[in-house]
Amino acid sequence: MQDSFGTLQQALRAFAAERDWAQFHTPKNLAAALTVEAAELLEIFQWLPSGEKDTLSPAQYQAAGHEMADVLCYLLMAADRLEIDLFAVTQEKIGLNALKYPVARFAGKSDKYDQPAQPDS
Amino acid sequence: MQDSFGTLQQALRAFAAERDWAQFHTPKNLAAALTVEAAELLEIFQWLPSGEKDTLSPAQYQAAGHEMADVLCYLLMAADRLEIDLFAVTQEKIGLNALKYPVARFAGKSDKYDQPAQPDS
Amino acid sequence: MQDSFGTLQQALRAFAAERDWAQFHTPKNLAAALTVEAAELLEIFQWLPSGEKDTLSPAQYQAAGHEMADVLCYLLMAADRLEIDLFAVTQEKIGLNALKYPVARFAGKSDKYDQPAQPDS
Amino acid sequence: MQDSFGTLQQALRAFAAERDWAQFHTPKNLAAALTVEAAELLEIFQWLPSGEKDTLSPAQYQAAGHEMADVLCYLLMAADRLEIDLFAVTQEKIGLNALKYPVARFAGKSDKYDQPAQPDS
Repeated sequence: MQDSFGTLQQALRAFAAERDWAQFHTPKNLAAALTVEAAELLEIFQWLPSGEKDTLSPAQYQAAGHEMADVLCYLLMAADRLEIDLFAVTQEKIGLNALKYPVARFAGKSDKYDQPAQPDS
Repeated sequence: MQDSFGTLQQALRAFAAERDWAQFHTPKNLAAALTVEAAELLEIFQWLPSGEKDTLSPAQYQAAGHEMADVLCYLLMAADRLEIDLFAVTQEKIGLNALKYPVARFAGKSDKYDQPAQPDS
Repeated sequence: MQDSFGTLQQALRAFAAERDWAQFHTPKNLAAALTVEAAELLEIFQWLPSGEKDTLSPAQYQAAGHEMADVLCYLLMAADRLEIDLFAVTQEKIGLNALKYPVARFAGKSDKYDQPAQPDS
Repeated sequence: MQDSFGTLQQALRAFAAERDWAQFHTPKNLAAALTVEAAELLEIFQWLPSGEKDTLSPAQYQAAGHEMADVLCYLLMAADRLEIDLFAVTQEKIGLNALKYPVARFAGKSDKYDQPAQPDS
């Protein structure tokens, strides 16, 4: 069975090839486009208190899904171009984060791992 | 068989639950964190001509993989929180993009679909 | 009397010239660096409810000032490179925004000008 | 004589007051909006080689100016809200950057100050 990441990457490869767009798709340009799409997602929520699902209009909810899809497309294309196995590296990173953020110290806290702990508020 | 997206989302759900972090993980905050991680990926490439794999140092290449993993984690968490099926919405979006960017007009061009075509240069 | 924008742009021009950095400072690269610095500012606030001054630690407050300074530096450098008068174009844009967001319709609302009004909540 | 920063901040304060928008303008929200506008500037350049002035269409050039104005507006509003003197902190930051990036080591190089120097290419 074809995996989700592979299925989408194959579709994106065909999409770019048909349009002769590989020339534009350097890792640098894809990272810029990825950041632009992430910011378009953020724009939907920027003046809202939380952006929780039940506070979004149908148009906002649909737009959020589409911006998230755009983010994923550029991410998959960048991984493809750089020959990075996105699934493997993400599993590895979740393991590294578990070491950086031990439960005992970070439970209920949003501190960054390399900064002094904030006093309880 | 468990799919890649589901496997990672399950791991991320457990990670956040152990640390009691769901309180911080509103869609708005996740979209902000996603944008921050995308920008950290972009930072690696910002002064480089293209960021192609063979121009990166080993440290830059590893860092790029880790930043891409962070982007994916926040994206999957946001999709989970908003109950969006990221795989389905991405397939749908690739289909919509094919309509917005017909091959005949956009082959070899980086114009935006809603802007006048640039003259050939 | 030398104006604030001009004073800073002159210092930045000298700074880049001494290091022979103009070669890296294309408008594209400066826009990428500007976005990266803006995201570093956002990172300080990403898990906080509001980021108001009295909720920040002294280290966070100082870091916020420094990130804002970095944003301004790249913005002034981009304006310089593109020969854009940042003061004049900002005055013009504030005037345009006043037309896009008439007080009568937008008072107390965070709607975007090109989207349907949200019902009062 | 009124300084540029102060002139614009005063206009922005009046603009927000008339629309009762201070409620939305937390430092966090302003930092998000700032990042979104920076990304909109980046979007103009994302597929271009350099974004130099003579390669932009008149529409792109005008749009770049307007996005830069939006960035400056949110930056000035954030500084105002956090009671940060943007001119002073930027002068201070340029001084700090001169110490972080000594001419002798960084001339002609785009390395980051806290990373090992790249070999000459």
